[in-house]
Amino acid sequence: MRSDELRLRALPGLPEIGPGADLCTLILDGLAACSETLQSGDVLVLAQKIVSKAEGRLIDLRDVAPSAQAHALAAKAGKDPRLVELILRESHEVLRCRPGVIIVEHRLGFVMANAGIDQSNVEQHGDGMALLLPLDPDASCAALRQQLSARAAATPAVVIIDSHGRAWRQGTVGVAIGVSGLPALQDLRGQPDRHGRPLEVTEVGLADELAAAASLLMGQAREGRPVVLARGVPGVPGTGCARDLVRPRALDLFR
Amino acid sequence: MRSDELRLRALPGLPEIGPGADLCTLILDGLAACSETLQSGDVLVLAQKIVSKAEGRLIDLRDVAPSAQAHALAAKAGKDPRLVELILRESHEVLRCRPGVIIVEHRLGFVMANAGIDQSNVEQHGDGMALLLPLDPDASCAALRQQLSARAAATPAVVIIDSHGRAWRQGTVGVAIGVSGLPALQDLRGQPDRHGRPLEVTEVGLADELAAAASLLMGQAREGRPVVLARGVPGVPGTGCARDLVRPRALDLFR
Repeated sequence: MRSDELRLRALPGLPEIGPGADLCTLILDGLAACSETLQSGDVLVLAQKIVSKAEGRLIDLRDVAPSAQAHALAAKAGKDPRLVELILRESHEVLRCRPGVIIVEHRLGFVMANAGIDQSNVEQHGDGMALLLPLDPDASCAALRQQLSARAAATPAVVIIDSHGRAWRQGTVGVAIGVSGLPALQDLRGQPDRHGRPLEVTEVGLADELAAAASLLMGQAREGRPVVLARGVPGVPGTGCARDLVRPRALDLFR
Repeated sequence: MRSDELRLRALPGLPEIGPGADLCTLILDGLAACSETLQSGDVLVLAQKIVSKAEGRLIDLRDVAPSAQAHALAAKAGKDPRLVELILRESHEVLRCRPGVIIVEHRLGFVMANAGIDQSNVEQHGDGMALLLPLDPDASCAALRQQLSARAAATPAVVIIDSHGRAWRQGTVGVAIGVSGLPALQDLRGQPDRHGRPLEVTEVGLADELAAAASLLMGQAREGRPVVLARGVPGVPGTGCARDLVRPRALDLFR
């Protein structure tokens, strides 16, 4: 039964996250601070940055020696060669490069700008630091889900989100890069429409729709609200991972 | 001030919509049926299909004479030549064609499959009918907003959504194809991050994020819940239109 209401709530600001931070405890504290108790069917949506920081994915650019390839690409993109070196290390393939942006296939399969490496909202040393995506965001979600399950009244689904640009539309939107406990890709094949005809749309990017919804509350600016509790999401609990959302290269019409 | 809560509620099922249907009255009736009163900052999110049906965009394929180009493309895509004729009439350009799907630039600027022409959830005559997108969804939103404003206690923003596939990700997501009363594309340029650095992400597809959120509640199947009330969306009221979300061709790296 699909609920007719979806409620999303941003938890109060977390402290600045460092390597080894206990996200489980911080989230449970945040829930307590706004008098929320986890219920079956809840989803916790986390901004990628706090997971990356907790996992120690902050890199000091002074430790990065750019390759010749990185120097060449950096000149084309107008970027710091050390940052481009990190982008290359994090990627399988460079798809496009123009001033300001390098579009790659990330090692996790996502086609995205600059391999998701971020220099905003990174506190120390300003320009000298870069934050990489988590090593394995699906695994990070599963681990956090396990920890929350052991300490909370109910087991939530967990989603890690990032902001991606789109090929043909302006503006970034939240997308899921890690998922545990819900069907990231919802398969509707075989379901009839209201008039008994087969549905034309057969697969829905459910975790991406949720990521976009949570992104509305997190904002991009200084709010510092990296955790959103979502209640009423269809298909939860369920199974799936963010890799389900990656279109296989053989089906890609636009590379 | 950004709210820390976002609430979406699907209105109770509307009756089947025919040409000339009074969507304003049907929506106000739906709101009353679930004891909701419009407040400042509310957004009404509508599925494209009910707007298209109300605007009489249902086409009887028996009235469509396919061109030679439509026949050729239909053979390639494995589609009804009359349907392909409608796709071509609704489009500026065909970008890709493979069995089952024709990717076009719609006359409204959107890059999408099959020009958004839908045969599911179309009641009469089954295979014989096709539903086109509204003629001018931004204008449809503005008109409905005006009508609601005249009859309700507050003026909501109005968004019309459709489900689109993505170049590199599996599954469709809700996107905005018509907008009135909110910043479809939210411009964050010049805003600092938490540490005073300029934000790297500068434009957010706010209406698309909201469309995705509402799509979670509408579902794709037989629920028949084509209207969602959203409360707590940042930036509302504001100004913008869905055309703001179309990436100009000159900036398109993937055509």
